[in-house]
Amino acid sequence: MNDRNRLIYLPLGGAGEIGMNCYVYGYGTQGAERLIVVDTGVAFPDMDGQPGVDLILPDIDWLADRADRIEAIFITHAHEDHVGALGHLWPRLKAPVYCRRFTAIHAMRKLEETGQDPAEVRVVEPYPAVVEAGPFRVQFAPVSHSIPESSALVIDTPEGRVVHSGDFKIDHEPVVGEPFDEELFRDIANGGVRAVICDSTNIFSRHEGRSESQLPDPIGKLIAGAKGMVVATTFASNVARLKTLADAGVANGRSICLLGRAMKRMVTAAVEAGVLTDFPRTLSPEEATEIPRENLMLIVTGSQGERRAASAALSRGSYLGHELKEGDLFLFSSKTIPGNEVGVARIQNALAEKGVLIVDDTAGFYHVSGHANRPDLEALHDLLRPQIVVPNHGEYRHLAEHVRLALSKGMTGIVAANGSMVELSGNAPQVVEHIEVGKTYLDGSALIGAFDGVIRDRMKLALNGIVVVALIVDEEDEILEDAWVALRGLPEVGATGGDLAQMIEEELAQTLPRLPAKTIDDDDKLEDAVRRVVRETCMSEIGKKPEVTVLISRLMAE
Amino acid sequence: MNDRNRLIYLPLGGAGEIGMNCYVYGYGTQGAERLIVVDTGVAFPDMDGQPGVDLILPDIDWLADRADRIEAIFITHAHEDHVGALGHLWPRLKAPVYCRRFTAIHAMRKLEETGQDPAEVRVVEPYPAVVEAGPFRVQFAPVSHSIPESSALVIDTPEGRVVHSGDFKIDHEPVVGEPFDEELFRDIANGGVRAVICDSTNIFSRHEGRSESQLPDPIGKLIAGAKGMVVATTFASNVARLKTLADAGVANGRSICLLGRAMKRMVTAAVEAGVLTDFPRTLSPEEATEIPRENLMLIVTGSQGERRAASAALSRGSYLGHELKEGDLFLFSSKTIPGNEVGVARIQNALAEKGVLIVDDTAGFYHVSGHANRPDLEALHDLLRPQIVVPNHGEYRHLAEHVRLALSKGMTGIVAANGSMVELSGNAPQVVEHIEVGKTYLDGSALIGAFDGVIRDRMKLALNGIVVVALIVDEEDEILEDAWVALRGLPEVGATGGDLAQMIEEELAQTLPRLPAKTIDDDDKLEDAVRRVVRETCMSEIGKKPEVTVLISRLMAE
Repeated sequence: MNDRNRLIYLPLGGAGEIGMNCYVYGYGTQGAERLIVVDTGVAFPDMDGQPGVDLILPDIDWLADRADRIEAIFITHAHEDHVGALGHLWPRLKAPVYCRRFTAIHAMRKLEETGQDPAEVRVVEPYPAVVEAGPFRVQFAPVSHSIPESSALVIDTPEGRVVHSGDFKIDHEPVVGEPFDEELFRDIANGGVRAVICDSTNIFSRHEGRSESQLPDPIGKLIAGAKGMVVATTFASNVARLKTLADAGVANGRSICLLGRAMKRMVTAAVEAGVLTDFPRTLSPEEATEIPRENLMLIVTGSQGERRAASAALSRGSYLGHELKEGDLFLFSSKTIPGNEVGVARIQNALAEKGVLIVDDTAGFYHVSGHANRPDLEALHDLLRPQIVVPNHGEYRHLAEHVRLALSKGMTGIVAANGSMVELSGNAPQVVEHIEVGKTYLDGSALIGAFDGVIRDRMKLALNGIVVVALIVDEEDEILEDAWVALRGLPEVGATGGDLAQMIEEELAQTLPRLPAKTIDDDDKLEDAVRRVVRETCMSEIGKKPEVTVLISRLMAE
Repeated sequence: MNDRNRLIYLPLGGAGEIGMNCYVYGYGTQGAERLIVVDTGVAFPDMDGQPGVDLILPDIDWLADRADRIEAIFITHAHEDHVGALGHLWPRLKAPVYCRRFTAIHAMRKLEETGQDPAEVRVVEPYPAVVEAGPFRVQFAPVSHSIPESSALVIDTPEGRVVHSGDFKIDHEPVVGEPFDEELFRDIANGGVRAVICDSTNIFSRHEGRSESQLPDPIGKLIAGAKGMVVATTFASNVARLKTLADAGVANGRSICLLGRAMKRMVTAAVEAGVLTDFPRTLSPEEATEIPRENLMLIVTGSQGERRAASAALSRGSYLGHELKEGDLFLFSSKTIPGNEVGVARIQNALAEKGVLIVDDTAGFYHVSGHANRPDLEALHDLLRPQIVVPNHGEYRHLAEHVRLALSKGMTGIVAANGSMVELSGNAPQVVEHIEVGKTYLDGSALIGAFDGVIRDRMKLALNGIVVVALIVDEEDEILEDAWVALRGLPEVGATGGDLAQMIEEELAQTLPRLPAKTIDDDDKLEDAVRRVVRETCMSEIGKKPEVTVLISRLMAE
């Protein structure tokens, strides 16, 4: 143990991946640091890695073991990858949650949905208002991003000022919400900044960031030229884009209808929080069916190809009384997140089959990113002039490149992936401890660890199919009758033309009676023997070794 | 029936998707057309859609039913999505296979690997050499693409000339292989072209295509600046790129070593076919370990993130004596195919963790596409001036956009997705029949239909996990003992803290004895009753309804 106070930073999610942001700061003597948590985000599962899983949550075992030392939870903004896990994690953290008004509406809903008290969420005014949290003084500094009221956190500690950028971009005219205020950041930099923990998602985008305010013109022209119905999709949470789209529709003589629950919820929350004051009047889906298609614009959810969202529903057929047809225009005012390409293409192809003209940002200037590109990251570094840059929110390659950038500009930088505890208070930042962090899967109502083997087992089932065998062993340790076999996810017929299950049953009927008593006695040995027969038969009949589950029923002497 | 002769075109794969190219042309009276097949390609499965499947093959039931009418099979080039299914499909087609020399090496191997006679493959000289195939006269017109000896097919029929573009780009200096020869295509256009069946993959790329010959300069500069080992990856079949990379390495004082079986096979085939004459001397992986890393360049497989390829192996650790480290350079001289982004990022992140500098075509000009971009498609249209454009090789959105382009330029165009039989000989092209075509999955050694339910079943297992229940019903139709339960892919412990399998067993022990005799008598009813108990218990304990397999063992009176 060491009596010296230290300032630590520990990412539990979001560093080494995009999404699932969750970071910890601590100050105090080693092992007795007082802690604050920044963001409690989720990541979204896919069939390739987490089949059947509903949500991916940060593994907070380390934090939960130290829950008594947590002063507060801060949420930078209302994106799911920053707030989505709050309801699931809060019962293990039990600390007050601080965020700004619009974010609070979402944070409260997260608590309510999981049966907790929304009053744990406290609304904070922006910089220069201060939240005192143990040794930390925290201020919410407005930044521009793709959702209202995004904030960087200015975290004052006895070891100096840390700026946690959160997700941000530099946009001086963001259409909705606060512009990026360089004066404010110069003010923050006064007196020196020890470290910036900085968004890295767009480090590989080399051109300067573009402003939301550049979009109305090209989008307006596109709509003006449309003959049939116009449909536009973007992220539901991108309230500024919703406004850009709706305004462009109205300016071109179209009535606006929002489709998709998430979208309506976001607009309502933005109005409620006072960040959206002049959104055009919208029609209900039913009212909208009365409008001639050349005067209608739908703004819909599902820009990432989500199967249950409005875009997918419209691509499949009629949805809430609306059906697309030849001559309609469908605008993807969005960027496809890596991994979602196939889902987005599925929708675009289905729309193309209907004769709908699809336009996305490869065809023109219809989208701007919400994250800082490389030149804008440099601009933030230049504004804050920190001693240390610790990149966060990015895959490893993003973090490494961001450190390379920081070093090239004479700052100190360090790559800290999830679980790397960095001391920020020494002479140079260094990793002082590696915490084992995995991920937690919400699967139905169960929370399971990524390394528990459950999901690996499911993937094996998907790759190999399964053969189930039931055996009865009687009171004298004789195998009674023949084994029963069932298949799932395997072809019914083998190469020799026979019924595969029946062939396995026949092989077992040949083999099992010849097994020695000590094999039949022993569940493990008997299972192995059965498994071997099943796999050999399958290998020769279908060229595949399936998973095998053996159920041995041992009859008891009565 | 109709006695009139007609010319038909029928895509069985590749139209409505990228990959799995397989097209049929026919000429004769309806139902008695003589047929030729162009390409027999595969597509690659993914976890998201076809877990456990080895390859996706075209569904050729329609063709196989008419095998006696097939005059010949033509292979345009040696990419897997054009030749990969040959060995699997040939036994049902049994027609001579025509292709050029380099392609033939691969086609013969495909036949050999599946136990067939490679002598079915006949090597054809390029245009103006002619293959007579029933009513068709076919010539191989060299085009530039990303593999040597790619060819368009000039197909003369009694109804006029059809040009099947195959995969192509317009490159006047392709480094290896034949440049695109505009004079040749003007010659082909003399006398008129009835229809062009035309590559559509890059219809949405609006800039002009770029030449392979533009790459040596930027790649050379990149290598010149590298301090450690240089590794470059690209498609193994892109022989020109292999040469570009190797030449750039040698020019900068590096010895070359190829890693990955496919790559060595491609270079060997290219040398054997005489299309590659001056490839630099390469070292074996073992010899290469003797070379100082600053003088070595590895050219490796796995540019698409394939888990078993050399790139992935190097990202994980040491491979054949080579290990990457801080200061090495890894060049992706490739484009990531949609759907492969996550796999590629996985490798890049693992390399970044080793401190390797990763460079891809977002960082500079290190790759050119092998397909014609929109301006180059227009150039081909302009050269050939066909009456009809039928887009192929593309998803539906590509085909639709390509038709839109053709119409805008005064040609006739028609979208024909897999299964759409188009008559090319009438006044205007039209779809005359819809053939039911699915896909065939090679799964182990079994061929299964995409709609057989086997794969859907596997996906359900992956999403939901499975509970297996074994029951014994005795001679008097009484349920004997308690049911046995096993879980796969599900959490072992439920919300109430108990063992999930045991809880299901207990629920069944409560419920089953109370079932009426007529339920116990009937396998289906008994299974339903068991399934209901299992699902209800799981829903309340883990919030999930699993797949359920019930094995009922009915003891016979002896």
